[in-house]
Amino acid sequence: MLVVMQAQATEEQVRAVCQKIESFGYRAHSMPGAQRTAIGITGNKGEVECGTLEEMPGVQEVIRVTKPYKLVSRDTKPDTTIIKFPAIHANGPPVTIGGTDLAIIAGPCAIENRDQAFQVAERVVRAGAQFFRGGAYKPRTSPYSFQGMGEEGLQIMAEVRDRFGLLIVTEAVDYESLDLVDKYADVIQIGARNMQNFSLLKRAGRARKPVLLKRGISATLEEFLMAAEYIMSEGNYNVVLCERGVRTFADHTRNTLDLSVVPAVQRLSHLPIIVDPSHGTGKRNKVTPLSRAAVAVGADGLIVEVHHDPDRALSDGMQSLYPDQFDALMVQVRQIAAVVGRVVPETALAGVSRLSNS
Amino acid sequence: MLVVMQAQATEEQVRAVCQKIESFGYRAHSMPGAQRTAIGITGNKGEVECGTLEEMPGVQEVIRVTKPYKLVSRDTKPDTTIIKFPAIHANGPPVTIGGTDLAIIAGPCAIENRDQAFQVAERVVRAGAQFFRGGAYKPRTSPYSFQGMGEEGLQIMAEVRDRFGLLIVTEAVDYESLDLVDKYADVIQIGARNMQNFSLLKRAGRARKPVLLKRGISATLEEFLMAAEYIMSEGNYNVVLCERGVRTFADHTRNTLDLSVVPAVQRLSHLPIIVDPSHGTGKRNKVTPLSRAAVAVGADGLIVEVHHDPDRALSDGMQSLYPDQFDALMVQVRQIAAVVGRVVPETALAGVSRLSNS
Amino acid sequence: MLVVMQAQATEEQVRAVCQKIESFGYRAHSMPGAQRTAIGITGNKGEVECGTLEEMPGVQEVIRVTKPYKLVSRDTKPDTTIIKFPAIHANGPPVTIGGTDLAIIAGPCAIENRDQAFQVAERVVRAGAQFFRGGAYKPRTSPYSFQGMGEEGLQIMAEVRDRFGLLIVTEAVDYESLDLVDKYADVIQIGARNMQNFSLLKRAGRARKPVLLKRGISATLEEFLMAAEYIMSEGNYNVVLCERGVRTFADHTRNTLDLSVVPAVQRLSHLPIIVDPSHGTGKRNKVTPLSRAAVAVGADGLIVEVHHDPDRALSDGMQSLYPDQFDALMVQVRQIAAVVGRVVPETALAGVSRLSNS
Amino acid sequence: MLVVMQAQATEEQVRAVCQKIESFGYRAHSMPGAQRTAIGITGNKGEVECGTLEEMPGVQEVIRVTKPYKLVSRDTKPDTTIIKFPAIHANGPPVTIGGTDLAIIAGPCAIENRDQAFQVAERVVRAGAQFFRGGAYKPRTSPYSFQGMGEEGLQIMAEVRDRFGLLIVTEAVDYESLDLVDKYADVIQIGARNMQNFSLLKRAGRARKPVLLKRGISATLEEFLMAAEYIMSEGNYNVVLCERGVRTFADHTRNTLDLSVVPAVQRLSHLPIIVDPSHGTGKRNKVTPLSRAAVAVGADGLIVEVHHDPDRALSDGMQSLYPDQFDALMVQVRQIAAVVGRVVPETALAGVSRLSNS
Repeated sequence: MLVVMQAQATEEQVRAVCQKIESFGYRAHSMPGAQRTAIGITGNKGEVECGTLEEMPGVQEVIRVTKPYKLVSRDTKPDTTIIKFPAIHANGPPVTIGGTDLAIIAGPCAIENRDQAFQVAERVVRAGAQFFRGGAYKPRTSPYSFQGMGEEGLQIMAEVRDRFGLLIVTEAVDYESLDLVDKYADVIQIGARNMQNFSLLKRAGRARKPVLLKRGISATLEEFLMAAEYIMSEGNYNVVLCERGVRTFADHTRNTLDLSVVPAVQRLSHLPIIVDPSHGTGKRNKVTPLSRAAVAVGADGLIVEVHHDPDRALSDGMQSLYPDQFDALMVQVRQIAAVVGRVVPETALAGVSRLSNS
Repeated sequence: MLVVMQAQATEEQVRAVCQKIESFGYRAHSMPGAQRTAIGITGNKGEVECGTLEEMPGVQEVIRVTKPYKLVSRDTKPDTTIIKFPAIHANGPPVTIGGTDLAIIAGPCAIENRDQAFQVAERVVRAGAQFFRGGAYKPRTSPYSFQGMGEEGLQIMAEVRDRFGLLIVTEAVDYESLDLVDKYADVIQIGARNMQNFSLLKRAGRARKPVLLKRGISATLEEFLMAAEYIMSEGNYNVVLCERGVRTFADHTRNTLDLSVVPAVQRLSHLPIIVDPSHGTGKRNKVTPLSRAAVAVGADGLIVEVHHDPDRALSDGMQSLYPDQFDALMVQVRQIAAVVGRVVPETALAGVSRLSNS
Repeated sequence: MLVVMQAQATEEQVRAVCQKIESFGYRAHSMPGAQRTAIGITGNKGEVECGTLEEMPGVQEVIRVTKPYKLVSRDTKPDTTIIKFPAIHANGPPVTIGGTDLAIIAGPCAIENRDQAFQVAERVVRAGAQFFRGGAYKPRTSPYSFQGMGEEGLQIMAEVRDRFGLLIVTEAVDYESLDLVDKYADVIQIGARNMQNFSLLKRAGRARKPVLLKRGISATLEEFLMAAEYIMSEGNYNVVLCERGVRTFADHTRNTLDLSVVPAVQRLSHLPIIVDPSHGTGKRNKVTPLSRAAVAVGADGLIVEVHHDPDRALSDGMQSLYPDQFDALMVQVRQIAAVVGRVVPETALAGVSRLSNS
Repeated sequence: MLVVMQAQATEEQVRAVCQKIESFGYRAHSMPGAQRTAIGITGNKGEVECGTLEEMPGVQEVIRVTKPYKLVSRDTKPDTTIIKFPAIHANGPPVTIGGTDLAIIAGPCAIENRDQAFQVAERVVRAGAQFFRGGAYKPRTSPYSFQGMGEEGLQIMAEVRDRFGLLIVTEAVDYESLDLVDKYADVIQIGARNMQNFSLLKRAGRARKPVLLKRGISATLEEFLMAAEYIMSEGNYNVVLCERGVRTFADHTRNTLDLSVVPAVQRLSHLPIIVDPSHGTGKRNKVTPLSRAAVAVGADGLIVEVHHDPDRALSDGMQSLYPDQFDALMVQVRQIAAVVGRVVPETALAGVSRLSNS
């Protein structure tokens, strides 16, 4: 914390502020400048809570400095976290998020039925995805919109895992669904709207599976990292961050994809971060260029919506790629990955050959 | 939904779009203009989901028109909702939110102990508040910050109700706390961070007590009203909306209080709307002017943080008014209320006289 | 400037940063904390420009602290600025902006013809306005929209001044129009789009007339004050600030009126600040409630669009009040002004009586 | 324009709105829907200005549909604009912006002296830039900051052109500087703060040189394109758009680089668009990843700040790349360009060989 005094503040006023700070058990460091004095505060363990400093005579402004994150920070753990999933196929290499391998997560917005899930899964695994996404519990703005198939959707995804060797990523929206997702899936997704649902974060922190945490629609980087801190503080250290667009005044896309958060996270935290260009743009014709950009900026992976019949999708049809578009995207993704020292692993393709043989 | 065609779109392209629309069972209305053709869509019951319209040849843009809210809308219920609470004192008049009476809700950010709650409560009831606010479950950005006293805090507030005749407003953050708040308090608060926690909204929709729903930090008016729709769709029609500041680029206050949402809500919805200038500004020296402005703009009430010792407050000390400041504010609030046809009821003062006699 | 070191920064790294700071001729103040060290910088005259501090080993973040404003600051001039205009009528009291009198500026968005200007002027002067607004040079988003009458419009406004005793406020958009506005009008308006047109600001700083400076659509408080500093640094100390709404994600109004900037300006600066609820909301039905709120928050005045025939207005018809609405608003404005220790002066009314007699 | 009626609007109210629309000389298209009626308006030439439609009984909302841009639109000119510059060297191929060649513009924020300009120029031309950027007129937030060398700076850049065969890009801030830039440089830059300085845009529209138009810090896509329309409407069709970050709540970068605007512009307009990752992030360590992303998203070029001694830069030192970093970036840029069908031309390198020989 830093207290900036007014230019005309008297020495007495500076002294009074220092005494106040010390009365809280902190240490005050007075720094007289050419124009005004600033007073640094140290000795605090957590956040400084001195509710009346800003109102004291001669005080111009109080600036918060302390960064509250601990477990998410590179200060605590300098090495980048690599999350390992058991090999999908016998004898296959493990799948990872956060290492050299680029994590590719693809699938429909919502699971609508077994046939739809299988059709899309077959296409994305052939294109090179290692993970299958699909919603069984859909947080929708309107209570009258399709809310997902629930446990039945999870069961379909479990079949997809068995059949195609794809790891399953799906969203949990409350305790009940979180327990089921923890049981059926491989990665528990916490959606943007629940990024500060602290009860749910703590519960996810006690789950066994890794958590994919989406950035809230207007979350600062600090809030985003603190949400991950909630999960980690309960003991689950396998957290993947996900940028999915933030809300701004711009109206040419549904959200504004903030790719600069990728290097910003990588500087402050050891956690992997992936990008969701589907929600990040909300428009099919922007998903491919922004996916390329996300790989180029250095993201640890992509999560992309793919649907074989977007016109009949029960949600988010406007932002789902056709399977052919996803194929074309993956060709470019592989090329750009190479430029930034990444690789799309052949793991999944091994599964495809197994698939072809069956 | 409205499809805007490109200027150079051919008649054939217009026809193809119309056919596509009709293939979904909707009706297409082609409107040829001087520069370009627009095509209106009607006949849809809910949201139109045609995922590929925007990609069809000749299409410039697809604009959503349908408003999804039903129960919250003045279309459905033209008369303004007035929520009635049983009289606090024997023979007293009922307390209301949404009518001529201005609802005044005041108290500390968090309940810290019995003594603090009683000290603040005595001051706010004397100043004219009818409701006492105080957090027992605090959603905090950091898992290491004070998270509230839990049920013990609720019990203290129940004592405050008995002693001072103040109705209790307090936040619920998950199913468990919601059930307890429903049991102990008079109004269930859903915080800004949970405005799109749809599971919690539905649970609040099945509670017996009225719900105070805070606007999410970057919620559009439509999302705000749809969150209320979630509560109402489960059968609880007693919802009070609350503006508490939105996130913008501006950095001179913690949030930007959006007072224009008050007349905007009043135009579209029958639900009452109050204003929280404490969170809306985050700075003590801005709470009084913005409280006056909130009454002047026509809000149905205020929710204000008051603390007798902000320096030692366990949270939000920087934005809590001193009791003396709250007294002074209430004098101005009464005067401005009169200008806009409102009144601060004497209900509470009756309680105070009872208090003085006891 | 404050340099925050990483938690694991070594003493050597701290020392290197201090040496770097001192190599620029500044003084470094090292403050070791429980978790990390912060280093304050003093001794700089203007902004510190050390382009590589943030990249030095062990550095977490560099936080700018120095406030760059001088002449606009209450540090420099503790007394609130009151701008005085010569009495409009012989023997009348002077008109002021910034004192107890509330400045009321009203008129059409654009001057369209003599008849329109006179019709509106007669109504606003009768309602109590002391200033007449009207655009002769209109900055429009489209080059094909009506761009104003130019000098002919200024001449019409000069006639309005003579006939109705109203002081004239009108916008300048470049050097040429600024010179003409300086000649014909009483207050030179710099619009939101030109708030950082520094060449124009400097020219306005060399004009004889007071300047009404509108806040840019996404200007921080600091940028807003620094724009005023540009004008003052050239010698023109008569600057009136004007909040007119900022751009946010919210879509229920054209802009989001940020009333909290009024007390924020009053805390930091001695300059008066008024509010424009017409551009601040963009919707006629929101102008009256937000005007009331602006007076209640403590603004030094209002600038409101009024048109006798909004349907035929050449610009901004949707946000112009009818004269009858403006009359009703002024009744409420007078009442709320009294609550905050302000008064709408009778100056203008004196003019009206003169008008009636003529 | 589309008028959405309230659900309970009567037939009479619908009829009254249609009559009103027709009284303005437009055509009304009534579309009765399941829940409510919408009324389309056609027949308008420019923007519809009916100031009271929204206030008529039974009207819920008025939605603007017409796109005001003409000359910038792909509707008007389907082929992508390629701006051609005469060959820098005798016998060399022409330099272009908008075609297959990626335009690389690099140089210091401000021209500080001849030595600095030459040192940076030599490095960027060797790395492959075809254009040299440098400010002679600097729009600075503070009137007390370095404002640029003026015409002397332009003369230094003219020498850079002669010596290194680099085309010159530099900013104009008013009429006077624009005339000088038009005389000395190859591309006239209009900065973000002047994007809606319509007088300056019109003057640029009458200049001989191509214009690089930066997006305003909170400009919508429509406003951005309309600013280009201002320039084109005066006869200068050679406009290059430039994304340089927008202002949002996010605080980990100085601005939020909105890469999605690149495909959005390419869909609506034939004009080329480049990206400025230096101002777009404001932090050196984010410039390289975001430059890669900009090429991957499909931009027509980059404009990057490079300085050989950022610690002593008179402005923007914190966001300038070191020459070595720029070299490394160009290696990656070439590789990613190939993935998206682009190439960094060898034009400049030809100049370098000439340079080496001299």
